[in-house]
Amino acid sequence: MTGVRIAGVGLTHFGKHPERTGRDLFAEASEHAFADSDVSHDDIEALYYGNFMGELAEHQGHQGPLMAEAAGVRAPATRYESACASSGVAIRQAVKDVRNGEADAILVGGAERMNNLGTAGTTEALAIAADDLYEVRAGITFPGAYALMARAYFEKYGGSKEDLAHIAVKNHEHALPNEHAQFQKEISVEQALDAPMIAEPLGLFDACPITDGASAAVLVSDEYAEEHGLDAPVSITGTGQGGDRMALQGRKHLARSPAAEEAAEEAYAEAGIDASDVDVAEVHDCFTIAEVLALEALDFYAPGEGIGAARRGETTRDGERPVNLSGGLKAKGHPVGATGTSQLVEMTRILRGDHPNSDAVPDAKTGVAHNAGGTVASATVHVLEVQE
Amino acid sequence: MTGVRIAGVGLTHFGKHPERTGRDLFAEASEHAFADSDVSHDDIEALYYGNFMGELAEHQGHQGPLMAEAAGVRAPATRYESACASSGVAIRQAVKDVRNGEADAILVGGAERMNNLGTAGTTEALAIAADDLYEVRAGITFPGAYALMARAYFEKYGGSKEDLAHIAVKNHEHALPNEHAQFQKEISVEQALDAPMIAEPLGLFDACPITDGASAAVLVSDEYAEEHGLDAPVSITGTGQGGDRMALQGRKHLARSPAAEEAAEEAYAEAGIDASDVDVAEVHDCFTIAEVLALEALDFYAPGEGIGAARRGETTRDGERPVNLSGGLKAKGHPVGATGTSQLVEMTRILRGDHPNSDAVPDAKTGVAHNAGGTVASATVHVLEVQE
Repeated sequence: MTGVRIAGVGLTHFGKHPERTGRDLFAEASEHAFADSDVSHDDIEALYYGNFMGELAEHQGHQGPLMAEAAGVRAPATRYESACASSGVAIRQAVKDVRNGEADAILVGGAERMNNLGTAGTTEALAIAADDLYEVRAGITFPGAYALMARAYFEKYGGSKEDLAHIAVKNHEHALPNEHAQFQKEISVEQALDAPMIAEPLGLFDACPITDGASAAVLVSDEYAEEHGLDAPVSITGTGQGGDRMALQGRKHLARSPAAEEAAEEAYAEAGIDASDVDVAEVHDCFTIAEVLALEALDFYAPGEGIGAARRGETTRDGERPVNLSGGLKAKGHPVGATGTSQLVEMTRILRGDHPNSDAVPDAKTGVAHNAGGTVASATVHVLEVQE
Repeated sequence: MTGVRIAGVGLTHFGKHPERTGRDLFAEASEHAFADSDVSHDDIEALYYGNFMGELAEHQGHQGPLMAEAAGVRAPATRYESACASSGVAIRQAVKDVRNGEADAILVGGAERMNNLGTAGTTEALAIAADDLYEVRAGITFPGAYALMARAYFEKYGGSKEDLAHIAVKNHEHALPNEHAQFQKEISVEQALDAPMIAEPLGLFDACPITDGASAAVLVSDEYAEEHGLDAPVSITGTGQGGDRMALQGRKHLARSPAAEEAAEEAYAEAGIDASDVDVAEVHDCFTIAEVLALEALDFYAPGEGIGAARRGETTRDGERPVNLSGGLKAKGHPVGATGTSQLVEMTRILRGDHPNSDAVPDAKTGVAHNAGGTVASATVHVLEVQE
């Protein structure tokens, strides 16, 4: 086995680009990743690409070859779909293939076009990530599903709408200097609490927005990096994936996310670390309660303890372990298929020291990225470490 | 690296099951694969699953965790989508992970539900495998695209509608004893030639049908097979994947399939064989002309020579290298996401000697399975060999 280096990363602006196609967005993100990497397009041996709802939003499946073309890459391309963890699973496979010598250089990434469907259309399209027979036909959508999880959490462990508001406020604050973020706008706890209710107890500011965008990263082997004299200080040292029953009705409890726990356990074991070694994290906060579940799945907090982390200031940029310095899905935005790779992009920059929020963690050596699909029926966790 | 054994295989009947869901179909196929394998559900470390158009046919994305549940497997699950090569790419990743020691036992498979959309609805849904901007909006559907390829082939190399008819007749004949086949019905060259035209020069019998069905296989490492005393004589000794420009307009020529050529070259190199070593093949004959392109991509014939193979009797069950003994997509049926694994299932049985057509190749030791997506913008090839 060889080590896996992140040679270059790229993003589009996350936001409303209803006039741009998925291929246009991915072409831009991958161009940035190549420019950042000093890796030649010709050296790429595969594209692993995440997309969730292109069939519905663009009448476009089979996006692998399409996106290879958009990226200017002449290599076999595979599309991964695991709902909101679509590019998380793509990254995982790239990591496995590079470390096992199957390829020396792989392009990973994802894109999603959502705004062209409108809010109601997007909500309906997103529902394909839930169980159509047992959840969607019963009338549930994702805000409702995460509201049930929040209620179960409050019931079991305590916590309040105000605790959740502090997560939204934190992530909006983190996004302020992030030029890729959909919202570079401060909000207050009062604003979050006063916002229109979506699904009790979740209000408008507890939910991530509808976002168009793309992300890309070039992964190479240690040998390739050395041979080409690349400046690629960050490695992926652990990958984990977990799965759970699809529908909430099949879960043991709604207030935890065992799929992410399993993913974290596997990724930490591979990297030879535990939670206490992690300096900084990007987690999947599609709703504020999801950040709480993530903090606990990553073993940063015992069950029931994560809810107060933002309120206590522990996960803010001035806290001991900042979470979602990018702004998270909440404020940076959530173009579904792009999100997993986007977290990798942000974490790479944070650890390299060239992220606008790198100054919050100047000594950070170890970061994690946590990506979840559906109501965490699937999850991936990746450990990133700065190599000395 | 370790070897990769096919421990067990399973299929549903291929045909019209408009009242059965995708999960119901996959549950049945995987149950057969487990029963055939002597591998415990608990030993499965991952599910790699292919599905193409579940978003449109069942309003269901995120099928990985859903299908793990249907199969009774508690393991991380990933859905692969590469149009008609969806489970081909899933198999490829499973092969890589098993041979590299990432997992000892992986369930692969696929399912597709199509008939519930009707013929026009299915044709429209299938079009998402083509380039929406540059092909679909110009009015082309897959019968039209393959008709262009057939015309280009005839123009460049010669050949006739009658040559194609012989392929349909052969594959229908092969399907006669296959209880899983959608059509167990003999047809004549005259019937094929007299059938309604779909897209000149392709008539009704040049096209595969619309099919519901599922397929599954359990792949294990040599060590696992030995340790558990499994009777698993067939190994996957080579995997290859190729990619091409998505839209026909971007191709160098329409009368060849370079993505499949690349896939074959890679798979043969891994297995240490060449085309002359291959005793029997399952190829992706979504249209009769596609079988011709496959025969040439697999280097069984030089460009321009494949068109007459069936007519000359070389690829029939009595020929020197029978092709599509299962009946192929043409007569066995083509539930898109299930097809790649289905070819693996059929080839395993052919080589093990327990296929109804095994008697056609009693001494066969080496087989290949060729799976293609779209107009061969993506392709996989796998080499299967009987271990002594």
